[in-house]
Amino acid sequence: MAASIKDVAKEAGVSIATVSRVLNDVDVVNEETKKKVQEAIKKLGYRPNIVARSLKTQKSRTIGIIIPDISNQFYPEIVRGAEDVSNIYNYNIMLCNTDLDPDKEMEYLRVLKEKMVDGVIYMSNSLEPAIIDLVKSLEMPVVLVETTDRANTFPSVTIDNEKGALDATEFLIKNGNKRIGYVGTHEDVVNAAAYRFQGYKAALEKHNMEFDKNICYFSGLKANDGYEGIKEIVKKADIDAVFCASDEIAMGVINGLREEGKRVPEDVEVMGFNDIYSASIFYPKLTTVVQPMYDMGSVGMRMLIKIINGAELVQHHFVLPHEVVKRDSCKK
Amino acid sequence: MAASIKDVAKEAGVSIATVSRVLNDVDVVNEETKKKVQEAIKKLGYRPNIVARSLKTQKSRTIGIIIPDISNQFYPEIVRGAEDVSNIYNYNIMLCNTDLDPDKEMEYLRVLKEKMVDGVIYMSNSLEPAIIDLVKSLEMPVVLVETTDRANTFPSVTIDNEKGALDATEFLIKNGNKRIGYVGTHEDVVNAAAYRFQGYKAALEKHNMEFDKNICYFSGLKANDGYEGIKEIVKKADIDAVFCASDEIAMGVINGLREEGKRVPEDVEVMGFNDIYSASIFYPKLTTVVQPMYDMGSVGMRMLIKIINGAELVQHHFVLPHEVVKRDSCKK
Repeated sequence: MAASIKDVAKEAGVSIATVSRVLNDVDVVNEETKKKVQEAIKKLGYRPNIVARSLKTQKSRTIGIIIPDISNQFYPEIVRGAEDVSNIYNYNIMLCNTDLDPDKEMEYLRVLKEKMVDGVIYMSNSLEPAIIDLVKSLEMPVVLVETTDRANTFPSVTIDNEKGALDATEFLIKNGNKRIGYVGTHEDVVNAAAYRFQGYKAALEKHNMEFDKNICYFSGLKANDGYEGIKEIVKKADIDAVFCASDEIAMGVINGLREEGKRVPEDVEVMGFNDIYSASIFYPKLTTVVQPMYDMGSVGMRMLIKIINGAELVQHHFVLPHEVVKRDSCKK
Repeated sequence: MAASIKDVAKEAGVSIATVSRVLNDVDVVNEETKKKVQEAIKKLGYRPNIVARSLKTQKSRTIGIIIPDISNQFYPEIVRGAEDVSNIYNYNIMLCNTDLDPDKEMEYLRVLKEKMVDGVIYMSNSLEPAIIDLVKSLEMPVVLVETTDRANTFPSVTIDNEKGALDATEFLIKNGNKRIGYVGTHEDVVNAAAYRFQGYKAALEKHNMEFDKNICYFSGLKANDGYEGIKEIVKKADIDAVFCASDEIAMGVINGLREEGKRVPEDVEVMGFNDIYSASIFYPKLTTVVQPMYDMGSVGMRMLIKIINGAELVQHHFVLPHEVVKRDSCKK
């Protein structure tokens, strides 16, 4: 039988109200009494009823994390970074997979509100007006990770995806490549990855190179998209390099090129994006844009906990640094 | 302002107690009244206060998932399978990363109990007596996934790891290999992967092949363990195949062999274990033992929800089927 607040009061020789004041950190209790209560709590192994307390304080010390899909290699690192920080501050996380389905996202937002989570880390593509309205009406603190809403209403953590893609494409240009293909999301899609197509085009423009739609393939971000994309592209035109909007695409592209008898990087250089775990295990090891996923999760969580506790944010939008890391899928 | 239970009662023209009875599915309300209440709930968009209800029913419709590390490629699929099933039954999941630290595991178990989770999906290595005692004293339903306790106290879902390893090693033997190395967990470690070493030895014995400790390397389950392990082994002896206790090990082994100028599978055949996502993207694609990770998560969650709702389990221990899948890291 677990110890109750009554047992603690009896053991410490104080009233239940006093124990409650100590538990809730109300400052009117003198140090000596506080110590007595804390000792009694320790001795009896008493644990306050968190659910009852949630009801009273409307706080659950739980944070919701809404992500597209934990089994996509991109998200586990972000979640791990977020959970490590939440753990330091004694919060737990509730994980919700949405598959980017707006209805599922809205349902989860409502459920998280009902379960009185203190805030939400939100990763999505769409952020439709209906979702933004819902978040506002639920009055839950929200931090967007790897996502921004167009009006910049919500605090967010991202990298500069356009600049990352520009740097990556420029890297390929400086390696002497003249015909650089693209496989990835179309710019019309509303997500972080779509900015990468803009960065790709900006790099070509900056270096007075012609943009050729024939060597671009618009798709999802999976290995299979890369595999199919490169098969389409090589049918139509010659290329000497490909900028891929994700590492998984790059892996699919490399597998496709191998089947076509083309060597990477000797015949075609391939650039990835994200630096997922397997990017440095894959053969050849991917040259790619490092997106600090763990940090995105941990910075996002720290921002959210600050907001929950009424602290001032130094910055409303964090743009974390990216970096092109050289490995073996490009010549140098 | 959200609708309250009072508003619903008023709208439906019934008492608050009646609304409460409908919400709690108590059968004394007649159908017509029930319908009126349900219509009022729908019209007003009323959502019951789940936290208050948790306190009353001691149920939170939340399930804890304790895993070593979500950023390890093995776990996201399991978690996804578990969450998909929990979602169907209107449960949410609380995710806890322990890094296999028993203190962290025990702390999470206590916190999950405080937060009144209805049950726990538990993945671990150790299951020390202290942890088993704690779980029993907390009186929370627990299902072990990819883990069993030695006394088989708790319901569990696993594959037959020993048989999986035996099948895999036999596959290498039937391909004509005479000197088959091993990289993976030592049999003294108390986890699922340790059974794989036993299966490896059993296969050698079955085929009257000598066991040679010189071509075994005991390590963790990461790519780097494979890389270092194979470097050690080739220094000491010649091999024509390696059985690896995980796919990540197999990838590290292949990268190490490549550096040593050995071709896979022409010079050395390499067998993995698990069939993680990147196993079929890696070059060469891994021949490996498929462990149905998504199914392990979903079967485990289904068992847990049954237990929570007082249903009889058909089976206390589920052993899911495994399969050796042929790809390109073995000759045939």
